[in-house]
Amino acid sequence: MIKVVFFDLDDTLVDTTKLAEMARQNAIENMIRHGLPVDFETAYNELLELINEYGSNFGKHFDYLLRRLDLPNNPKWVAAGVIAYHNTKFTYLRTVNGVRRTLLELQRVGYRLGIITDGDPIKQWEKILRLDLDPYFEEVFISDYLGVKKPHPKIFEKALRKMKVEPHEAVMVGDRLYSDIYGAKQVGMQTIWFRYGKYANRELDYLDYADFTVDSLEEVPKIVRGLNDEEEERSDSEVHAD
Amino acid sequence: MIKVVFFDLDDTLVDTTKLAEMARQNAIENMIRHGLPVDFETAYNELLELINEYGSNFGKHFDYLLRRLDLPNNPKWVAAGVIAYHNTKFTYLRTVNGVRRTLLELQRVGYRLGIITDGDPIKQWEKILRLDLDPYFEEVFISDYLGVKKPHPKIFEKALRKMKVEPHEAVMVGDRLYSDIYGAKQVGMQTIWFRYGKYANRELDYLDYADFTVDSLEEVPKIVRGLNDEEEERSDSEVHAD
Repeated sequence: MIKVVFFDLDDTLVDTTKLAEMARQNAIENMIRHGLPVDFETAYNELLELINEYGSNFGKHFDYLLRRLDLPNNPKWVAAGVIAYHNTKFTYLRTVNGVRRTLLELQRVGYRLGIITDGDPIKQWEKILRLDLDPYFEEVFISDYLGVKKPHPKIFEKALRKMKVEPHEAVMVGDRLYSDIYGAKQVGMQTIWFRYGKYANRELDYLDYADFTVDSLEEVPKIVRGLNDEEEERSDSEVHAD
Repeated sequence: MIKVVFFDLDDTLVDTTKLAEMARQNAIENMIRHGLPVDFETAYNELLELINEYGSNFGKHFDYLLRRLDLPNNPKWVAAGVIAYHNTKFTYLRTVNGVRRTLLELQRVGYRLGIITDGDPIKQWEKILRLDLDPYFEEVFISDYLGVKKPHPKIFEKALRKMKVEPHEAVMVGDRLYSDIYGAKQVGMQTIWFRYGKYANRELDYLDYADFTVDSLEEVPKIVRGLNDEEEERSDSEVHAD
C-alpha cells in the first residue's frame, strides 16, 4: 500500500535547466550590451565550458569568464552579467508543467508528499519558497544538508525513516535514472522515471530500475492509484484463498 | 574653474541605508512567517548587532543569526531571509531625491561627472547599472578595485589624474565628512557635504573641511556655478587691474 510519494526537485518539480539556460544567455547579452568586446557565441560557449569545469554553484563564473577570454577584470561587465542572471532567475522561475495539478490530486487522495533533492540547502529552499511549493510537502530532504547525495541509499533511508514508512510504501519520482531511480530502487521503493529535460536520453543503462516511465507528471497519480488497486486485488484474492 | 564634479555613491546618489533597513526588516518578517520561533524585535536587534560586528558585506548573516539565537541550522529559514532581502533590494532600489535632475543640470551646463566610492566593485556597479546611472558618468572609481579607500589621498589623486584635471578644478560631493569631505580637501578639491542619512550628525570634527553644506543635492549645480562665477569675477578684476 503506497502512503508516500517523493519527488526530486530540479527538472522534476522546478524547470531548472531551462531557467539556467535563459539566465546565462541573458547574462552574456547584458555583458555585451555594457561593452564586453566579444561576440555572443564565443562568450556563451566559453561560459558553458567554464560551468562544466567548475560546476554550476561556483561563485565566480563571470570573473573567470573574463580571464578565460583574456579580458581585463572589469567589475562593470561582471555586474551586468550578475544582474541579468538574477533578474532572469527571479522573474522566470517556474514549476514544470502540471506540477500543481499533480500535487493537489495526490494530496486530495490522501498521499503524503516529500522532496528528496541534491544541491545547496539554501538555494533549494529558495526555489521551493519562491514557488510556494512548501505547503504541499511534509518533509524536504536535501543532500548537502544531510551530508549524503543521491543515489546513496542513506538519503532514501533517512527520508523513509523520518516519514515513518517502509520502502514498499513509497514511490520516488525523478528525472535522473541514476540518482533518483537507481537510488530509490536500491532501497526497495517503487520508481517512476520522469523523462524530461536534459536527462531524457541519458543514463539509460539504469532504465531497468524504473518501474514506470512518464512524459508528464500528470500521469503520476494514476500510476500510484494503480499500484494500490493492484495490492487491494491481491489482498482480496488472498482473503478468498483462505 | 571647476570642470569635474565627483559624487560619492552610497547615501549620496543611491538611498542605500534606507534600502538596507527595509531589506533587513523584510528578511526577519519572512523568516518569522516561515516558522522562525522568535519575536521580531529580538531577531531584528540581533541581526543589527551581528552586522555591526561582521560588517554589511559578510555573506552569512542569516546563518549566524540562527546560531546567535541558539536555534538549529534551518536552511528554510535562511532561504526565507535571503529571498525577502533580495526581493526588497531589487524592488526598492532608488536614487536619492533629486539625483537625476541634479546630474542632468550639471551635464547640461557642461561639467564632467565621476563617482568615487568605497565598497565591493561588483556590488557598486550593480547599483549603478540597475539604476541606469551609468550614462551620466565618465569614470567610476571604486576603492576595493583600486586597492585604496577614502579618505586616503591616493584614490582622489587617481581620480583627478584619470579625469585629467587639477585638484582646484574638481568638486567632491558626499554624505561622509570623514571619507568624502576630509579626504577630498586633503588633496585640494572643493567640497560639498551632503547632510543626509545616518551620517547627518556624525563625524562633525571634520566639518571644517566642508566648503559648503547642503540638505538637497539640487543645491549642487548652483554652488558649482557660483564657484565659477566667483573665479570669473576674480580674473575679470585682475584684467582690470592690469
